[in-house]
Amino acid sequence: MNTRKKIIIVGASGTMGKFLADLLEKEGHEVIRVSRTSKDVKADTTSVKSIQEMFEKIGAFDALVSTAGSTFVGPWKNLNDQTFRTGVEGKMMGQINLVLIGQHYINPKGSFTLITGALTHEPQIHFANASAANGAVEGFVRAAAIELQNGIRINAVSPTVIEDSPQYFPFFPGEIPTTMKQLEFGFRKSLFGAVTGQIIKP
Amino acid sequence: MNTRKKIIIVGASGTMGKFLADLLEKEGHEVIRVSRTSKDVKADTTSVKSIQEMFEKIGAFDALVSTAGSTFVGPWKNLNDQTFRTGVEGKMMGQINLVLIGQHYINPKGSFTLITGALTHEPQIHFANASAANGAVEGFVRAAAIELQNGIRINAVSPTVIEDSPQYFPFFPGEIPTTMKQLEFGFRKSLFGAVTGQIIKP
Repeated sequence: MNTRKKIIIVGASGTMGKFLADLLEKEGHEVIRVSRTSKDVKADTTSVKSIQEMFEKIGAFDALVSTAGSTFVGPWKNLNDQTFRTGVEGKMMGQINLVLIGQHYINPKGSFTLITGALTHEPQIHFANASAANGAVEGFVRAAAIELQNGIRINAVSPTVIEDSPQYFPFFPGEIPTTMKQLEFGFRKSLFGAVTGQIIKP
Repeated sequence: MNTRKKIIIVGASGTMGKFLADLLEKEGHEVIRVSRTSKDVKADTTSVKSIQEMFEKIGAFDALVSTAGSTFVGPWKNLNDQTFRTGVEGKMMGQINLVLIGQHYINPKGSFTLITGALTHEPQIHFANASAANGAVEGFVRAAAIELQNGIRINAVSPTVIEDSPQYFPFFPGEIPTTMKQLEFGFRKSLFGAVTGQIIKP
């Protein structure tokens, strides 16, 4: 049995975030749901100030799970410095800043779990921005794991297309969807296991 | 024998760039040296405008090699949103923008070769910013390879610490330095071979 943890879920209004928040809460953990529109705590991860305020409001915690972060999805011809920033500010720096700032609020032996995806190594047409953002987060996770102090761990979960988001299936030919159960187990490994610096493929 | 190519070397004032520029020129290629201070063509890759002007000045070309891009190197405690931007704007977006803009100037069957490094997968203390920037560039390279048209190829060369930069050896315990010959061969594979979407470990 896992001891009760105070767990922040960033991206709690999304498919994955909502699923994980409900599941961890049912298990008896204290879950703080964060999103731009959350009733618990509102935050916009593209803003350093908003992240800072979020941690000030929540105080000390045991684990942060992020399933948040936009990327630009669309034709390659529309990809330029400006559209690329969607993923740079969203999925990349949004998640990296959650760690760089959150490390000052997390309890010893706490954990960060970020979200990346198969696109890092298995590109698909229209998703170059996500491939880059994922790659950045994965490189950061491996590096942060050797820098974080007080037994604080960090991992990323890297699913393929998500079972409960069938609207994306046509964009991921050849990718076997990740079931919600697999996704849950991926996050469990980071949350309740002892690994750090890992890219968990659920 | 390789046919004569018009090759842009971005970062031509650095250790790797200078080495490659001299070598390719001796072989009979037309080499255009680009750096912030170059006598050939000056450019600052952190500026989209500067990149655009560089390509306008140079016109059509066959290959672009980038060995350019700063990252923040220093204690983890000094890593924050602001210092992280050194790598985001330098090694990451600088190189990505060279491709997004350069694709409109490069000749059919041309090639882009970017620089990453072992830090993507083998982190070292003080280099988290480079790990993230490298990861982003590598994800981008794999994705761009399936998007670029007209037989245009893209690869990254990913060395460990460079033989001719011994001042960095103490920061890379356990990394066997990449010799200049290995580095040369890595770039040759991308420049004169047929591969695309590869991260070449020389």
